[in-house]
Amino acid sequence: SGLVLVKNPHLDLMEEDVLYHLDLGTKTHNLPAMFGDIKFVCVGGSPNRMRAFAQFMHRQLGLAGDEEDVADICAGSDRYAMYRAGPVLSISHGMGIPSISIMLHELIKLLHHAKCRDVTIIRIGTSGGLGIEAGSVVITDTAVDSSFQPRFEQVVLDDVVVRSTELDKDLAEELLACSREIPDFPTLIGHTMCTYDFYEGQGRLDGALCSFSSEKKLEYLRRAYDAGVRNIEMESTAFAALCGLCGLKGESCRFQLL
Amino acid sequence: SGLVLVKNPHLDLMEEDVLYHLDLGTKTHNLPAMFGDIKFVCVGGSPNRMRAFAQFMHRQLGLAGDEEDVADICAGSDRYAMYRAGPVLSISHGMGIPSISIMLHELIKLLHHAKCRDVTIIRIGTSGGLGIEAGSVVITDTAVDSSFQPRFEQVVLDDVVVRSTELDKDLAEELLACSREIPDFPTLIGHTMCTYDFYEGQGRLDGALCSFSSEKKLEYLRRAYDAGVRNIEMESTAFAALCGLCGLKGESCRFQLL
Repeated sequence: SGLVLVKNPHLDLMEEDVLYHLDLGTKTHNLPAMFGDIKFVCVGGSPNRMRAFAQFMHRQLGLAGDEEDVADICAGSDRYAMYRAGPVLSISHGMGIPSISIMLHELIKLLHHAKCRDVTIIRIGTSGGLGIEAGSVVITDTAVDSSFQPRFEQVVLDDVVVRSTELDKDLAEELLACSREIPDFPTLIGHTMCTYDFYEGQGRLDGALCSFSSEKKLEYLRRAYDAGVRNIEMESTAFAALCGLCGLKGESCRFQLL
Repeated sequence: SGLVLVKNPHLDLMEEDVLYHLDLGTKTHNLPAMFGDIKFVCVGGSPNRMRAFAQFMHRQLGLAGDEEDVADICAGSDRYAMYRAGPVLSISHGMGIPSISIMLHELIKLLHHAKCRDVTIIRIGTSGGLGIEAGSVVITDTAVDSSFQPRFEQVVLDDVVVRSTELDKDLAEELLACSREIPDFPTLIGHTMCTYDFYEGQGRLDGALCSFSSEKKLEYLRRAYDAGVRNIEMESTAFAALCGLCGLKGESCRFQLL
């Protein structure tokens, strides 16, 4: 049917669904009227960048009105920022798995309540590259954890649930084909490793704590490269798992910095 | 000596330390002049609330100038917001362990570079209460994980490192004594449970996914209460572990919502 699935039998029994961190709700807002025609959702960490992206889409799509007027739909909350440009929604998710998870739970419910169909969601943002040319874009085929495994281990109450982190291979190829049309736009498909920590977790030597040697770091990153990892960030496994379970085509297309 | 410790032998070898997510650095800013006299750091999730808190402190301390003029010291970055009122720094940390960890690494390095002494750091914010009167403040004695254990398990490269989450018991008692001086201010000392997920991880029935019954949820939360847990949030174990390792008095004093 192309609809966005929720996998929660309790939800239909609720009189009202409040999307707390988005400052939206089923009783306070007409979600089908506001969002029913959304076809693409782009998410990224920084609110300012997601505003700039919405303005960029506004120009690209030749929409009427001043791009400077794009308004934050979640202005009543300072947890996330949300903008729209035609059928494209642009939302910030902050940094790390817990932060993107809260946003995705509420976004998925939003798309469900709004009866959106055939939605594509793409994560765009920065990441650390691994053994690739600076400025390259990595399109993720599979998100892996810090043991290079394609899984998202999530604690649900006191159980550990393991979820798949496969992404849409056709969408990855489609995005790669788009990149070929743009000159000087180095792009590749590879695995993306997701960590819970930016400093020690990614082998950085410049945190307040660092409990390993630079040799240990290099040995680890070499093993990551050999396992197919081409960039490192902090949200991809949760993104792939949640989008996969709820029937959203998901793709993590990231611009690497290092 | 009361100085803030960094536990990273590589740091002294670096010519410049850039605190990326705070938009500050040792070459671009005179950190001892800007921050050397800081004695208290209060951190919380929401940037707007941390601005309001700085304005509140400005009034309470009877500082000169208009409280409306408190400026975001990290205005060049939209990752975190930072304000100061006299010797008090007020900083937002976003939601979840990865987000607060990045901020704490850079804050600890900031306090170290600025040669601050005898700094007290307090997390203030909202949380979900467990079996306590609505509106109560929980002062954390120990942060526990989702198995009710006083530990922060962190993946460092591919090793799992276990860190202690004890907080300063004297500071907890001091804060409790302060609360007694205010009428109608229900306050208690208890354990705070930290989760990686707001919806499934905290037993909420209103996420996009929910893979457990309401009976299982109640049974889990009852066990949490019996283990001494009085509130649930998403940052306390990382906060306690990082502050403990770097010699900062740390206390999580939280206002519970439910």
